[in-house]
Amino acid sequence: MSQKIKEFREYRTMMNKRLLATDNLIIKRIFNLDTNTYTDGALSSTTKEMLGLVSSMVLRCDDCVKYHLEKCFEQGVTKPEILEIFAVANLVGGTIVIPHTRRALEFWEELESTIEK
Amino acid sequence: MSQKIKEFREYRTMMNKRLLATDNLIIKRIFNLDTNTYTDGALSSTTKEMLGLVSSMVLRCDDCVKYHLEKCFEQGVTKPEILEIFAVANLVGGTIVIPHTRRALEFWEELESTIEK
Amino acid sequence: MSQKIKEFREYRTMMNKRLLATDNLIIKRIFNLDTNTYTDGALSSTTKEMLGLVSSMVLRCDDCVKYHLEKCFEQGVTKPEILEIFAVANLVGGTIVIPHTRRALEFWEELESTIEK
Amino acid sequence: MSQKIKEFREYRTMMNKRLLATDNLIIKRIFNLDTNTYTDGALSSTTKEMLGLVSSMVLRCDDCVKYHLEKCFEQGVTKPEILEIFAVANLVGGTIVIPHTRRALEFWEELESTIEK
Amino acid sequence: MSQKIKEFREYRTMMNKRLLATDNLIIKRIFNLDTNTYTDGALSSTTKEMLGLVSSMVLRCDDCVKYHLEKCFEQGVTKPEILEIFAVANLVGGTIVIPHTRRALEFWEELESTIEK
Amino acid sequence: MSQKIKEFREYRTMMNKRLLATDNLIIKRIFNLDTNTYTDGALSSTTKEMLGLVSSMVLRCDDCVKYHLEKCFEQGVTKPEILEIFAVANLVGGTIVIPHTRRALEFWEELESTIEK
Repeated sequence: MSQKIKEFREYRTMMNKRLLATDNLIIKRIFNLDTNTYTDGALSSTTKEMLGLVSSMVLRCDDCVKYHLEKCFEQGVTKPEILEIFAVANLVGGTIVIPHTRRALEFWEELESTIEK
Repeated sequence: MSQKIKEFREYRTMMNKRLLATDNLIIKRIFNLDTNTYTDGALSSTTKEMLGLVSSMVLRCDDCVKYHLEKCFEQGVTKPEILEIFAVANLVGGTIVIPHTRRALEFWEELESTIEK
Repeated sequence: MSQKIKEFREYRTMMNKRLLATDNLIIKRIFNLDTNTYTDGALSSTTKEMLGLVSSMVLRCDDCVKYHLEKCFEQGVTKPEILEIFAVANLVGGTIVIPHTRRALEFWEELESTIEK
Repeated sequence: MSQKIKEFREYRTMMNKRLLATDNLIIKRIFNLDTNTYTDGALSSTTKEMLGLVSSMVLRCDDCVKYHLEKCFEQGVTKPEILEIFAVANLVGGTIVIPHTRRALEFWEELESTIEK
Repeated sequence: MSQKIKEFREYRTMMNKRLLATDNLIIKRIFNLDTNTYTDGALSSTTKEMLGLVSSMVLRCDDCVKYHLEKCFEQGVTKPEILEIFAVANLVGGTIVIPHTRRALEFWEELESTIEK
Repeated sequence: MSQKIKEFREYRTMMNKRLLATDNLIIKRIFNLDTNTYTDGALSSTTKEMLGLVSSMVLRCDDCVKYHLEKCFEQGVTKPEILEIFAVANLVGGTIVIPHTRRALEFWEELESTIEK
């Protein structure tokens, strides 16, 4: 696994643990909701992860983008599909999304390279 | 057709015409791109309209929400699916999205009522 | 009660009912969380409503602003306190918040006038 | 003068008066700064109004857009120039800016019609 | 003092000095206003810092969050109170705020560790 | 050339190349539009770059800010002019823009130092 992916995951895991350890009930429930929202329902989990990805892009949150890229990758979303999600995000959100798209593509290609090796 | 839907469409049509009549090339090309982005590709047009809808919701643009609701409606997206898109938008974008969700649901139900009659 | 306040409340009540009637579990739980977050805890409910108000202002959601103004009003927040919240919102969020501040002041003064009569 | 422009100006004037009447010093100073920022300096007042306009568009604040359209109009900015500002706003801010552009064009053309008559 | 806190403070101090050295009057006055807004008034300085913190979180500005965390820390805000501010921010602003919350908690715990040692 | 400027340019160039290599037509056209929008027209290219800069600042995208700073620098925009753009951005966008202004000033002064040497 690439160093970038590793660091991203480790920091997230560590800080989530520390956040949940604070025992703030509202934060716990938001984390819980976050998990439940993306499960299969009327829409498939895959479609929902794509919705999460495009939302994260137009709101320009790099870490959220990476998170949903990982999920999309696990669910078998293809690169041409990912690029069409990027296209919608850049159209709706504007060129302000381009720098996030560069970082998103880099992260996606690192995810792909983890299985090629 | 409900009065709300009618007024929304008429204003949009009228002002788009006036915008394009200004002959600003960049604006024309953005309108053109807007049409092309949502056509079938690696992702279906339906999925892309859903991506457009959720993006519009988290960016909290009522008119954009209405536009994509119309498109989703035309493409046969069901009400339970629409509600799951609303759910993702409210989770990712926060409770600040709730007032837009109220207006979105009202508009959706008006769209539905146009075919019930 | 002023007509504006009345219409605001009736629309919100009606559409919340229709939203919850859709039986989307995630939306129900977000509504539920919304209620629980503002109860007394380490911080008083009043302080939390002030936090909700300033957040709504910098995110520029008029309906959310009105909702938290109502809550602050019920909890006895004074007008000079409300104005200091407006001041923080306009400083942090910029002059883009001014139009929302105008509408917020109008709504607040209507709330005040409901008890003066 | 068109009814729309008249109402917009009257409401703004009335509420600004009420806001300043509250004697909140920070708000007064922000209003004061707002006036001073757009005066001639290294950049002309006209250029600064254009900067204010494009900022208001990408932040999607209709009232701020109208305010800066009025100022640009007074300063003799031409319609082709206004449209190029709209173009930058729609490119940088994305299609989410389109509905605001429709309303901005309508307001601009009303401003123009005030002198044609 | 942790390295992170030290670097954050040094960079801010250095660049603020360079910004003010440019002698742009508007920027100077905004910096001045920024100081005055958070002083005791109808609301205590502590409450205002909490308002500044939650605003910075929903607007997702890490540096602003750190700044207000420092101020809250100096004013004796407790960790359970900070977490309730985080909770409001994550509810109102959505899960897009989570990555900022992780970094905020890390910074807060570093502030706490500076006095434990 | 400073190390920061060099790294910024190299990463942008590399990732743009990889983005365009994906052959997503919409993304290609957005990149193309991005180039065309800032050319001379009713407004000069210089004015448009200033519009792009202020938009990037209020939308708080550091990489976009750097990009437009480079363009403004190439076009001969002076430091006092740049600071007045910063002033408008901080007024309209609020103190949330300050951290981005610090980084923007640092980048600008690095650009200036490249020609002093």
